[in-house]
Amino acid sequence: MIPAAVDPRLMANAIRFLSIDAIERATEGHQGVPLGMAEIATALFTQHFKCNPADPRWPDRDRFVLSNGHGSMLIYSLLHLLGYERISLDQIRNFRELGSHCAGHPEYDPDAGIEVTTGPLGQGIANAFGMAVAEAYLNAKYGPALVDHHTYAFVGDGCLQEGVGQEVIQLAGHLRLGKLIFFWDDNSITDDGSTVLSISEDVAARFRVAGWHVQEVDGHDFEAVSAAIALAKKDPRPSMIACRTVIARGIPRLEGQRGGHSARLFKEDLEATRANLRWPHPSFTVPDEVLNAWRDAGARHGGEYDAWHRRVAALPDKERAEFTRVIEGRLPDGWREALLAYKKRMADERVAQPSIQASGDITTLLTDILPEMMIGCADLEAPTNHKRTRFSFTAEEPAGTYVHCGVREHAMGAMVNGMAAHGGIIPVSVTYLAFSDYQRPTLRMAALMGLPALYVFSHDSLAVGKNGPTHQPVEILASFRAMPNILVMRPADAVEAAECWEVALEHRTGPSMLVCSKQTLPPTGRPYGAENLTRRGAYVLAEAEGGKRLVTLMATGSEVALALEARKTLQAEGIPTAVVSMPCWELFDRQDDAYRAEVIGYGTVRVGVEAAVRLGWDKYVGETGGFIGMSGFGASGPVDALFERFGITAAHIVAEVKRRL
Amino acid sequence: MIPAAVDPRLMANAIRFLSIDAIERATEGHQGVPLGMAEIATALFTQHFKCNPADPRWPDRDRFVLSNGHGSMLIYSLLHLLGYERISLDQIRNFRELGSHCAGHPEYDPDAGIEVTTGPLGQGIANAFGMAVAEAYLNAKYGPALVDHHTYAFVGDGCLQEGVGQEVIQLAGHLRLGKLIFFWDDNSITDDGSTVLSISEDVAARFRVAGWHVQEVDGHDFEAVSAAIALAKKDPRPSMIACRTVIARGIPRLEGQRGGHSARLFKEDLEATRANLRWPHPSFTVPDEVLNAWRDAGARHGGEYDAWHRRVAALPDKERAEFTRVIEGRLPDGWREALLAYKKRMADERVAQPSIQASGDITTLLTDILPEMMIGCADLEAPTNHKRTRFSFTAEEPAGTYVHCGVREHAMGAMVNGMAAHGGIIPVSVTYLAFSDYQRPTLRMAALMGLPALYVFSHDSLAVGKNGPTHQPVEILASFRAMPNILVMRPADAVEAAECWEVALEHRTGPSMLVCSKQTLPPTGRPYGAENLTRRGAYVLAEAEGGKRLVTLMATGSEVALALEARKTLQAEGIPTAVVSMPCWELFDRQDDAYRAEVIGYGTVRVGVEAAVRLGWDKYVGETGGFIGMSGFGASGPVDALFERFGITAAHIVAEVKRRL
Repeated sequence: MIPAAVDPRLMANAIRFLSIDAIERATEGHQGVPLGMAEIATALFTQHFKCNPADPRWPDRDRFVLSNGHGSMLIYSLLHLLGYERISLDQIRNFRELGSHCAGHPEYDPDAGIEVTTGPLGQGIANAFGMAVAEAYLNAKYGPALVDHHTYAFVGDGCLQEGVGQEVIQLAGHLRLGKLIFFWDDNSITDDGSTVLSISEDVAARFRVAGWHVQEVDGHDFEAVSAAIALAKKDPRPSMIACRTVIARGIPRLEGQRGGHSARLFKEDLEATRANLRWPHPSFTVPDEVLNAWRDAGARHGGEYDAWHRRVAALPDKERAEFTRVIEGRLPDGWREALLAYKKRMADERVAQPSIQASGDITTLLTDILPEMMIGCADLEAPTNHKRTRFSFTAEEPAGTYVHCGVREHAMGAMVNGMAAHGGIIPVSVTYLAFSDYQRPTLRMAALMGLPALYVFSHDSLAVGKNGPTHQPVEILASFRAMPNILVMRPADAVEAAECWEVALEHRTGPSMLVCSKQTLPPTGRPYGAENLTRRGAYVLAEAEGGKRLVTLMATGSEVALALEARKTLQAEGIPTAVVSMPCWELFDRQDDAYRAEVIGYGTVRVGVEAAVRLGWDKYVGETGGFIGMSGFGASGPVDALFERFGITAAHIVAEVKRRL
Repeated sequence: MIPAAVDPRLMANAIRFLSIDAIERATEGHQGVPLGMAEIATALFTQHFKCNPADPRWPDRDRFVLSNGHGSMLIYSLLHLLGYERISLDQIRNFRELGSHCAGHPEYDPDAGIEVTTGPLGQGIANAFGMAVAEAYLNAKYGPALVDHHTYAFVGDGCLQEGVGQEVIQLAGHLRLGKLIFFWDDNSITDDGSTVLSISEDVAARFRVAGWHVQEVDGHDFEAVSAAIALAKKDPRPSMIACRTVIARGIPRLEGQRGGHSARLFKEDLEATRANLRWPHPSFTVPDEVLNAWRDAGARHGGEYDAWHRRVAALPDKERAEFTRVIEGRLPDGWREALLAYKKRMADERVAQPSIQASGDITTLLTDILPEMMIGCADLEAPTNHKRTRFSFTAEEPAGTYVHCGVREHAMGAMVNGMAAHGGIIPVSVTYLAFSDYQRPTLRMAALMGLPALYVFSHDSLAVGKNGPTHQPVEILASFRAMPNILVMRPADAVEAAECWEVALEHRTGPSMLVCSKQTLPPTGRPYGAENLTRRGAYVLAEAEGGKRLVTLMATGSEVALALEARKTLQAEGIPTAVVSMPCWELFDRQDDAYRAEVIGYGTVRVGVEAAVRLGWDKYVGETGGFIGMSGFGASGPVDALFERFGITAAHIVAEVKRRL
């Protein structure tokens, strides 16, 4: 225990009053968490947490996640008190105002000390789990002199009711992530009132069953919490510190009550709380000695910070360059050349294969070039085939780059988001497209945060065949095209798969989806060129011949082959027909008008082809344009029979075109 | 124990051989489950399970869910052996062929004895949980003479790794659903191989922590399993019977192996298995004495079936009519009148209120009229306000109609699906629209099954305000409009809310979403009429005046008010402008061409208005039409500031129209 310069109760109250002053001013907010967890936060951040507010991005900092993100004023108060410049008192005064760094829920801002966006419950602890996996891998790979930090998360009852939280408890226990430490805000209150309404399990026992180290403490006892953290850091298992707390502690009208969660605060509440806690200071005012004690706590790892930089500087040149590259998220020399060589071979040899196999090829050839690439898969190793030469990341062998996530798609998605937010990792999630629904909340969070997480999906359409409609996505492409800030890419063959990977690896401001086929795709026959045509989103794969273009067939993925086949028939009948491959709508929409017009072929008969629903296609084919695809769910049956039954064949495309000519 | 006419091992082997014969013929399928769980199925279905294959829809039948749905041949073999006519030997021979009742994964077909579609792991046990809630409520309401049955589910490791499964374990334990019985197929193998790869928790202990009755048995010991079921039925807690099994038991090459899960079977495997298990019978052939024993098992509840019908027949007329109505899913007299009276009052008094409050009003006024309506809510009782006069469904008071689901949106969605599949309940799920992502897998299953489940969402747009972008749906309307067979309804005011409810209650072939506002919506001013205009999906709310229509503004929900305001300005400037309210695209798309053309106003300047992304709007406004809405995520801030910042105002609509005139 480091002797505190001032009474830690005063330091905790500084959190309390900054928080309720801001919440009252904003007329809304959630006081329950910052007041209930003030002592826990004080114990963690003054006694244990390793950071440097002057350099919030210090790679070897401890990570902190406020998974109960509605209690956002807790983290803003903390960051301000510790000395993170971006969270100034002015920002706190503007809590919940447009443009403030102090948004309603914490928004990913590594320069401010906010490691991830939180709010939808369960996501934060699952991100924290991903950060701990990243740390364990980097620690094993580069050694503790360079990577050795903890990941802490504050957790409410809601996070532990959400399924994703339960998945994380299982998986983190299984992987024995000893540097992952949760603080459960055990206040017996949720939004609906007493937790008696909705839970009766022994939460501590539940963690123990999953192999966690569990302690139970009074969450308002600064010294007990600090001692528990010390023990948690020593234990080789992930740790959960169950902290008994009083929600909204300090506000006479609300503490321990349902309304403590987020009932509106009024001036009288502030006055009563000031009297109750003997805090005579005006709003938004922290007395100097308390503020200084907090700032000292924030600055106390300066020595470690300097020592870490000295250790990095002392590395041999090549090692330093490599470590720095990885940690800063820069791609190495050679990655593009490797991809281009693969693409050339696929083009020259006209390789026919499932695009999920091409994606597997690519991650295999990148294994040594990108040691920072980690692949998680949800119990579909064989049918997605991305493990190959990789070995497993396990408790015993944390240097492995393949994580067997079990049938836990949701935790896996949040894991890759946490890895991306942590840095030093290029994280890849692999499962079937039908199960992307289980990950949708994490894809949304990745898009919202702008995290470079890669999501690879196989079994992307009706062509799943006999496994039937539960496994056949028909609406999922459209559902993600609706989501802002995510690249939805569906390659037509192995050549485009290589291009999609090139785009995805360079894309640093949001997640990428690679939507791949189970079935073999014939090559589109495009000759090799170093230019990445997928980067334009859509391009004329085969221009009309024998006259002015009369017909434009637009397709993605496996349906490009159908469009090419239909074109052959139409051309043979003297109808000049172009085929446009559209691997990524989002990229295409960013092209200039002239390019888009040239590709789309306004004035020609336009027909879209995709074994999925039409929603969104009107943008390219026009509201009265043609579309060959699905209008409902699929069925269980052989692939050819299904495509015939649902009318997705070259013959149907030809007929549709002729009807419109 | 009922003495079996023939050796139960033979009866179990009948399941095995029907299953592998079909899988080999189909060239694909999952033999692991039917062979590993054959004795368990035999014990359950010959000794305990209450059904009548001659009347698969008998309301008081026990329910069975194969949550590990990939093992579908287990249920087809069982249903055929028990005597369910629809699952004939021909159907089994056509396993996985287009049109067969024996699809790759079981597909909801109550006439065949298939209670729910399963495949995506975890969904099945969560549906079973919903069925058990339905049973507990109906049992409390109508008494055990009319409703008294068990819900059984077969569960694989994957179901227990999925978060939704964990949510169900917590909630079913909390609600002490004593008639819910799970059989865990503890075979230590998942698709990736040994379960050691991805789980190390003590699964039995995990259930115990949540308050379940747990037994551990040898899953190949028919008598032990039967005895465990008998104990499980007696215990007041939900029960989990952990059955140690050998995956693919009986196939020499595969039993106990990773390949046992679904490796391709060949003729030689069938021969080796026949020799191994001393089963000399040809493919698809069950010896008469074994088949007869199975058929006897299927028919043995005939007496109970008759007695139940006698009890129903003996009810006083009014009670019988009411019970029969509820169980058959017919609406009572008076519901529509009550809704129309509400709608009239809203129209006449021009009530301004949040549409989520209107929805709450409506469920309140229906409380007594529709005693079969049960509402689940995920810890948002206060902000969604649908509890009101209802009381809670609890272990002690199962006659309550409001289920506090805790922060478990996913389990809640699967629960309402299970209730809808069970029958006798009009199930309603309530949460924020942003959290619909957590329920998306269940909405998809409801749509796929065509279940009449109601999903009410509040906080439907940017107007969530200060809680920020995590809580502001911008892409979610489009994402569900992409989904087949679901009505996405977004009312513009309390009048339309009443109409949406009328549509939703009548809609029996798929789920309905009611997407409601947090903020107060002004009345659109439509005068009262009994006709439900929402049933047409879209309608001209305010026709252009003073000349031929030049402009058509189309909007949904809260943005209808903005469109009306813009119209006022445009009309004042002499520009004849119509406003179209579009509460439900799916219903509008079913109208005839003439009606659609009249509403859409081809040839006029068309502008869509919705505080969400454009995807899909091109269908109505044209690919070059106008749109006022979002192109990215929202932000945290006051509502007015947000709408100004993102340009969603009447002034922007007017400007957009003028730019296009």
